[in-house]
Amino acid sequence: MSVSTKDALSSFKETIHKLKSYEEALGVLYWDLRTGAPRKGMDTRSEVIGALSGDMFKLATSPELGEWLTVLEQNAAYAELNEIEQRLVSETRKEYDRSVKIPPKLYQEYVIISSQAESKWEEAKADNDFAGFQPYLEKVISYTNQFIDLWGAKATRYDTLLDQYEPGMTVKELDRVFGGLREQLVPLAAAIAASPHQPDTSFLRQQYDKSAQKAFSLYILKQMGFSFDAGRLDESVHPFATGLNPGDVRITTRYLEDDVLSALFGTIHEGGHALYEQNIMPELIGTTLCTGTSMGIHESQSRFWENMIGRSRPFWERNFGELQKQFPGQLDAVSVDQFYRANNVVQPSLIRIEADELTYNLHIIIRYEIEKLIFNEGAKAADLPAIWNEKYRQYLGIAPPNNAEGVLQDVHWSGGSFGYFPSYSLGNMYAAQIADTMEKELDGFWSLVGQGDLLPIKEWLTERIYKYGKLRTPSELIQSVTGKPLDPQHLVSYLTNKYSEVYKL
Amino acid sequence: MSVSTKDALSSFKETIHKLKSYEEALGVLYWDLRTGAPRKGMDTRSEVIGALSGDMFKLATSPELGEWLTVLEQNAAYAELNEIEQRLVSETRKEYDRSVKIPPKLYQEYVIISSQAESKWEEAKADNDFAGFQPYLEKVISYTNQFIDLWGAKATRYDTLLDQYEPGMTVKELDRVFGGLREQLVPLAAAIAASPHQPDTSFLRQQYDKSAQKAFSLYILKQMGFSFDAGRLDESVHPFATGLNPGDVRITTRYLEDDVLSALFGTIHEGGHALYEQNIMPELIGTTLCTGTSMGIHESQSRFWENMIGRSRPFWERNFGELQKQFPGQLDAVSVDQFYRANNVVQPSLIRIEADELTYNLHIIIRYEIEKLIFNEGAKAADLPAIWNEKYRQYLGIAPPNNAEGVLQDVHWSGGSFGYFPSYSLGNMYAAQIADTMEKELDGFWSLVGQGDLLPIKEWLTERIYKYGKLRTPSELIQSVTGKPLDPQHLVSYLTNKYSEVYKL
Repeated sequence: MSVSTKDALSSFKETIHKLKSYEEALGVLYWDLRTGAPRKGMDTRSEVIGALSGDMFKLATSPELGEWLTVLEQNAAYAELNEIEQRLVSETRKEYDRSVKIPPKLYQEYVIISSQAESKWEEAKADNDFAGFQPYLEKVISYTNQFIDLWGAKATRYDTLLDQYEPGMTVKELDRVFGGLREQLVPLAAAIAASPHQPDTSFLRQQYDKSAQKAFSLYILKQMGFSFDAGRLDESVHPFATGLNPGDVRITTRYLEDDVLSALFGTIHEGGHALYEQNIMPELIGTTLCTGTSMGIHESQSRFWENMIGRSRPFWERNFGELQKQFPGQLDAVSVDQFYRANNVVQPSLIRIEADELTYNLHIIIRYEIEKLIFNEGAKAADLPAIWNEKYRQYLGIAPPNNAEGVLQDVHWSGGSFGYFPSYSLGNMYAAQIADTMEKELDGFWSLVGQGDLLPIKEWLTERIYKYGKLRTPSELIQSVTGKPLDPQHLVSYLTNKYSEVYKL
Repeated sequence: MSVSTKDALSSFKETIHKLKSYEEALGVLYWDLRTGAPRKGMDTRSEVIGALSGDMFKLATSPELGEWLTVLEQNAAYAELNEIEQRLVSETRKEYDRSVKIPPKLYQEYVIISSQAESKWEEAKADNDFAGFQPYLEKVISYTNQFIDLWGAKATRYDTLLDQYEPGMTVKELDRVFGGLREQLVPLAAAIAASPHQPDTSFLRQQYDKSAQKAFSLYILKQMGFSFDAGRLDESVHPFATGLNPGDVRITTRYLEDDVLSALFGTIHEGGHALYEQNIMPELIGTTLCTGTSMGIHESQSRFWENMIGRSRPFWERNFGELQKQFPGQLDAVSVDQFYRANNVVQPSLIRIEADELTYNLHIIIRYEIEKLIFNEGAKAADLPAIWNEKYRQYLGIAPPNNAEGVLQDVHWSGGSFGYFPSYSLGNMYAAQIADTMEKELDGFWSLVGQGDLLPIKEWLTERIYKYGKLRTPSELIQSVTGKPLDPQHLVSYLTNKYSEVYKL
């Protein structure tokens, strides 16, 4: 029995709406788990999450959904859909095919394996025991290779993985941009390390009252235009942002009593993610397009606000006085210039999540190159520690003293998130390229930052990026906003300019 | 095709588990809505709740579930079930029949009508406009009458409504117990009003620091044995308790800066509900029996802890010093005796939710008698204000100056919750009867309270009530715990003894 286009469209949209509702319910459950759910309820809550996720997966892979998609993809039917409906059909088709191609039994096995691998990774990292972790990592790689076979390899096998997080991104493109980046950032980092003008950071490490830190974080969030009627700020061990719907976007931070910057920059970073989610157009609410278009574009917004705005000189010229007021007597002897420079220290280090704005990209490039070796060249898990250490020596000039501070430092691989790392540096590159356009098009951009008048910046980003949610692809967005494809030169120029001044190169 | 008993049982249990999972997910969503969810996300969140509730309803009324129940109810099959399974079958059958008897279209209409009636009630109460509310109330009554027809009237039509909240409770039984209660409480309240020994309450109304109130509330919750690993205390406009699972039971309170008792007794009250939910036996987790057995028994626990323990002399002999410490200088001139008496003021008043322990029951009896008039005698909505006012004059000696402070004060009727009110007084009666047994059976009961050693009391209740969840009916419980059926004389004796001393009658 064939279905009419009209019926297919209405059933399709109803299913999309239900999928989005389940996603939002799960979003609340996850948020709750990470912000104070009582310990003893966790096992039962996991079963609740399992039940909802299972029903959601059934819905997302149902034969009926496949049938409706087929009807709506026929030329005559597709041509009559509006822009949002067309994009919903193509996005849903992509997810649908990806999901139904994995046999449920294989996926069940993989869920168990990767969950075991994550537990084992935690132990192995604590015990500096790569050999103990290696068999688990081998299994996760083997399952991932099976998935690539089932999904079908793109230009290279690793391309298939990249596409999950950054739709349309390829090895060819990443080789181009990361190649350019690496060639220029490695010598820049070396020049900075050799500079005699190292910033003084001693004053950053004092006892900073937590409630004053929170007050200042809220003050900055307000300045950014974060809507507290459509969001909230909570605490969690690892900061995160979750867009439940544009009217309910929640972020968290973590206050360290001996560090005045950690919670603040965490808040600005998550606040950037939140501005994206709060400003998606109402027409997309209740659809699966109502979220950021990719990990890389999302990360561009957190990093734009954190680094380009939050670590800029005009930002601190505007806000340092307020910070001094929050901590009476603690920062009186520090000048804005000293504080600004202390916020922009570059220091080659071993741990990605503690890295500065510049060397962070080298940490990512190393991981990207290793992931390519695994999936495109067949590198073995056993070889990874040596490859890792050699690349750190080569790009950052330091080698990890042990695997815990080297190849074992990140959770990603144990959970099978291969192809995710590049998003972080893509975010940095997108952010610099967007900022470059903004400086040209938004009158008095830096004066606005210096006056604490950040709303026009938020509006500019809303009109060009935020409001579209997932309606445009990352490459469509970067082309339409900046008039050209991704170009790593903007990030290089931004970093070169900033650090030439800070380090008097 | 007929289903084997074994398959029916396993499918049945799987469905029950899923229903419970959905209920828990919805519980988290409701808790979140009432404890700080951002305003602008509420509309979308309502749709999420609607989607999950709809799927849950479909599951709870599916023909398959009906088929499994029929298989499991056959004598031979039923006899092989364990106690928990048998009770699950009978409880589920009851809910199933109740749900499938209402045509979905009629129920949809009713949901809309009652939601409109609730909005209209809010307006009508604010404007003292009974005439504006009357047509909505008439509709809600009319739908409720249709439901009674579909469900089938029990001994009287109103019995059908009572059974929803207090399984097995009847008009015949309530006439007996409420009759006895009314006859003795009306003269007791009159004697108290005439007493020259009225407690001084002036010191209760000062500015009491909110964080000190919270600290004292937490101190008392800990003393009661509330597990903070299996629960949390938050704030909301209207205090409530929600048992998501025994490892995650959340309560809320509301701090009034000019009232030292409101948040505290709210916390103890909800804490009583929480102790019940935290101590249900693990075997019931993940089933629909994992909750309190009825509204009345649940309320008996909140009221036992709030009134019998929290407003007792030994409780304050133990804890008043700690309260004084929390508010330095504010209660130094007050004696324990003065404070105890101030906690036990009786004062006939117009508003149920502000009523004291004694007159509260008269507010309930009035509502019970009016609900009987509506459903068993055909009283019209238009007549309710006059009936209400006359009963207040007769039982409490005061008449409302307007309908806002009279017949319009409660939300219940606008939402169709007819039959719910008696639960509150049943709670008081159950509590007094249980306390009477506990005094006899638990060695040194009042000394334990005086020493702040409340854990044996919690344990006693756990072994006899809490752990059974919904495994035993209210009447089975009260019989097994106290050795006899519900007897209102215990509440009368408790109130007479307490107030004879406080008011020197």
